[in-house]
Amino acid sequence: MFAMAPVLGIDPGLSRCGYGAVVRETGSRLRAVSCGVLRTDPALNLPQRLSILHDELESLIVELKPSVVVVERLLFQNNVRTAISVGQASGLALAIAARHHIDVVQYSPNEVKLAIAGDGGAGKAEVGAMVARLLKLREVPKPADAADALALALCHLWRQRVGAATESTRTLDVRSDREVGLPSGLDQRIAAALARRT
Amino acid sequence: MFAMAPVLGIDPGLSRCGYGAVVRETGSRLRAVSCGVLRTDPALNLPQRLSILHDELESLIVELKPSVVVVERLLFQNNVRTAISVGQASGLALAIAARHHIDVVQYSPNEVKLAIAGDGGAGKAEVGAMVARLLKLREVPKPADAADALALALCHLWRQRVGAATESTRTLDVRSDREVGLPSGLDQRIAAALARRT
Repeated sequence: MFAMAPVLGIDPGLSRCGYGAVVRETGSRLRAVSCGVLRTDPALNLPQRLSILHDELESLIVELKPSVVVVERLLFQNNVRTAISVGQASGLALAIAARHHIDVVQYSPNEVKLAIAGDGGAGKAEVGAMVARLLKLREVPKPADAADALALALCHLWRQRVGAATESTRTLDVRSDREVGLPSGLDQRIAAALARRT
Repeated sequence: MFAMAPVLGIDPGLSRCGYGAVVRETGSRLRAVSCGVLRTDPALNLPQRLSILHDELESLIVELKPSVVVVERLLFQNNVRTAISVGQASGLALAIAARHHIDVVQYSPNEVKLAIAGDGGAGKAEVGAMVARLLKLREVPKPADAADALALALCHLWRQRVGAATESTRTLDVRSDREVGLPSGLDQRIAAALARRT
């Protein structure tokens, strides 16, 4: 069997840039193939740090060959203090993925929380616990940026599935839901919540 | 005579990214060697636009071989609506310059206005007129993003000179001031204003 190309989530940041790659295997099982955090030394100046992050993001994309890169969409009201450097880091991730001809999608933190925990206002701990559960990991990935990046990848895989089901007018297959670890009925709750928003 | 490496100013933006390269020639005369605007098509998606901007900024740096790249420092309160895309564009400029081992400096809009027009609160028209005057251009460069980029380069050249004069405890040479087009006494006014701020 050929290895599937993973979906690569990126939680952009200058001090800590989380990444997490997930593949959907046969039987809809989801598996984390890579996750971690790219760090840049705060003792370096900003251009040097961005240059290092640029090269590390590029290496990651070349190495993992993702089918899709999922980057957190920035909302301005969040963390005003670090918003500029987060914006700069996200710009690098978006540009590098596009330069490698990889599809890029962005989801807001609320969209991710809604997809993963069924609640757009879910806390970090709740999202982390759901990431561990969906990927059958013994522990919540640390630091939180790595778990957040896996959550981005999972959000995309979940939405792809819901989208595919909707497009083909098939109903959701609850059995395969259980196989990927989604709590029974969660898909319906999320779908209903999404429907209310659109 | 060997051509001097220019100082390249970059006024970051996604729709319009201004650039302007200035050299200081023999006799302290300042000359604009290149200026213009990099544009990306708003019909393209964000990652594609950032990818195009990435490649155009890189071509510019490879072609002009600047000694220094001067990028406008982002202040959060300015233009909240476009702050994310401006941040993303600035991240690209900073990272690309550093990847090419070129020194990068950043100045805030107020620092540029103070250096160019002697007033941190100067308007666009005033800065544009001073840019044209300092570079002995018949007209103010258009669009404003190109003039702003030249202003960044001029700000750096001016501060270098003031810095050099201060370091060597020489007083400012008013005659060469006139040669580069600075109105008589302006250097002193700016130096005094800067001294008040620090």
